[in-house]
Amino acid sequence: MASPSIEVALGERSYPIWITTSQADGSNPVDFASSFQDSVGSCSHAVLIHDAAIADTVANQVERVLAGMNIRVTNIQVPSGETSKSVAQLETIWNTMLGSGTDRQSVVVAVGGGVVGDLAGFAAASFTRGLRFVQVPTTLLSMVDSSVGGKTGINLPGGKNMVGSFWQPQMVWIDTQTLSTLPDRDFISGMAEVIKYGVIEDAEFFSWLKDNTGSLAERNPDALRHAITRSCESKARVVAEDERETSGRRAILNYGHTFAHAIEATAGYGVCLHGEAVAIGMQMAARLGIDMELCPPSLLEEQTAVLEAAKLPLVWKEADPDQMLPVMARDKKVAHGKLRFILPNRIGDVSLVGDVPAEKVIRAIEACRSMN
Amino acid sequence: MASPSIEVALGERSYPIWITTSQADGSNPVDFASSFQDSVGSCSHAVLIHDAAIADTVANQVERVLAGMNIRVTNIQVPSGETSKSVAQLETIWNTMLGSGTDRQSVVVAVGGGVVGDLAGFAAASFTRGLRFVQVPTTLLSMVDSSVGGKTGINLPGGKNMVGSFWQPQMVWIDTQTLSTLPDRDFISGMAEVIKYGVIEDAEFFSWLKDNTGSLAERNPDALRHAITRSCESKARVVAEDERETSGRRAILNYGHTFAHAIEATAGYGVCLHGEAVAIGMQMAARLGIDMELCPPSLLEEQTAVLEAAKLPLVWKEADPDQMLPVMARDKKVAHGKLRFILPNRIGDVSLVGDVPAEKVIRAIEACRSMN
Repeated sequence: MASPSIEVALGERSYPIWITTSQADGSNPVDFASSFQDSVGSCSHAVLIHDAAIADTVANQVERVLAGMNIRVTNIQVPSGETSKSVAQLETIWNTMLGSGTDRQSVVVAVGGGVVGDLAGFAAASFTRGLRFVQVPTTLLSMVDSSVGGKTGINLPGGKNMVGSFWQPQMVWIDTQTLSTLPDRDFISGMAEVIKYGVIEDAEFFSWLKDNTGSLAERNPDALRHAITRSCESKARVVAEDERETSGRRAILNYGHTFAHAIEATAGYGVCLHGEAVAIGMQMAARLGIDMELCPPSLLEEQTAVLEAAKLPLVWKEADPDQMLPVMARDKKVAHGKLRFILPNRIGDVSLVGDVPAEKVIRAIEACRSMN
Repeated sequence: MASPSIEVALGERSYPIWITTSQADGSNPVDFASSFQDSVGSCSHAVLIHDAAIADTVANQVERVLAGMNIRVTNIQVPSGETSKSVAQLETIWNTMLGSGTDRQSVVVAVGGGVVGDLAGFAAASFTRGLRFVQVPTTLLSMVDSSVGGKTGINLPGGKNMVGSFWQPQMVWIDTQTLSTLPDRDFISGMAEVIKYGVIEDAEFFSWLKDNTGSLAERNPDALRHAITRSCESKARVVAEDERETSGRRAILNYGHTFAHAIEATAGYGVCLHGEAVAIGMQMAARLGIDMELCPPSLLEEQTAVLEAAKLPLVWKEADPDQMLPVMARDKKVAHGKLRFILPNRIGDVSLVGDVPAEKVIRAIEACRSMN
């Protein structure tokens, strides 16, 4: 059989990421069934947790393949949107799993975007204290970010991803063909995380992106596989160095995210897409980096150009430091009340910076209310 | 400083268990504050989750010690009883933790019995994907069983411990003095797990118990420390061999428990104490072992004598196989629908036995409706 595109190196928790493209006739150069069998091992019951939006397409295909492998499938549909990452939705899933005879030999298969992956991943991590788990991300954002690295979780009112666990999947299966039907706004949102990898640790990839946002916007399969592979490789490298966010290295993945979480929380979850908030957050972080004299103003120009070419938003008119700062103070990266940010040194290199003065943070937020 | 009574050997997740007795003047031969500092490291915020029943005694003492170490304490009180191991109670704890500024540097301290330990442990495991955690068990049952080994979790309607995670504490602190005010029924219930260790893997300890149930019932501190130490050593040995219940070895700790869970579930959680159900379950398991010709009838006689001396119940008049079997079929030890039990070979040795005929299980249940 074929070799996986990427192997995430985490010792006994290592797993493959397959990045492939289904053909027009539905065939795929890599076989899902044998990849599943190879990574998961024996399985006679799967809990397929999927986003309502892809119930009739990808989720249905995956269900048919699993059924063809003589696997009993329990189907759990989750409403689209961030509000599904709730205690109530998780409780519904736990009860459905119990009612359908899910046991420690069962396998959870998440089909959908980051919401479903995070929610299903935490259900897998916690039901009977841990089930095997497979990720089939169907959005660009989840392909390049949330499906890789083992972070699972749900939101609390007033705190995003406040509850969850580190739980690695058995495999991640990415078929770029599923992106052909992804709405433009969602696709563009995912591009924010792709561009983020260029800024935080892959300058060569950032250069490639300068020339290829056009082909990506057209969903060219070769360009997509390249961008997704480079993004996943970048994330896998960082995660392998710091699986549980203990050394500080993994925090670089949160470039732009401290601001983004505050934008999402004050705008109300779901108003602003995650990637849109990340793009604006990256702009705030770059401005803060310049203000802190960590990077040259040209970095902001370069970043602005690529985000703009990808059609991402760069400003948020309602940005209100008085609302955002208290949210940032609750961020998981906060060490006992001190604000810390990932800030750029140059394209391809960022640092975790502690003790950032609040007035500079306020200035960075206010500067992103409009294009100057 | 003094050496811990037991070191649970789990590689980088190893931790000490202190087993000590406070003196009449409140002093203790081992210092809690320095043990805490030694195991936990730096800490400026603790979330003290405690059982309402010991709010004014042990929880209050622990809070004062922590405050004396300049640790800010958030106090969360949990109603006594198994019904607190619910999604609703967990959600309340998560929200209180968020509202009180709990972050990744915070430490969860569980003070109470198994309910509080399991619930607080899962809250620690899941809040911001994992906080440090200290167990201060205050009942005999939690001292010898639930506080050791890292199993945390809550119940679902119809499924005990169905949700949770493996999450090891930084240390376990056992003060036998707290047992002096434990109600008799709770103390006796805890004795079931103590006796269990003798049956499953420590024949010498079983012999010691034959002669010492009297001193234990009188809560003699020396006898208590010995019994708790032997029990925790037994559990620590088994857990070190099979932390996440993957090899099957850890399952021996569930001797009597498949029956016990079914007794608790059909009686309604909280009607029958856990240890009471375990004692009856051990009797059912011994009868099943004899029926399967795995052990001699004398094993049941010996076990009966020790359980009886500890004043534990040996029969359950309402035992109904029709209600209990469906619950057992959902047990986490079930491998795809086949009933499996831990059955005794001789005192000090048990095995996991698969494919047990349902009619023998029914016979074992019916035989424990009354003393023959």
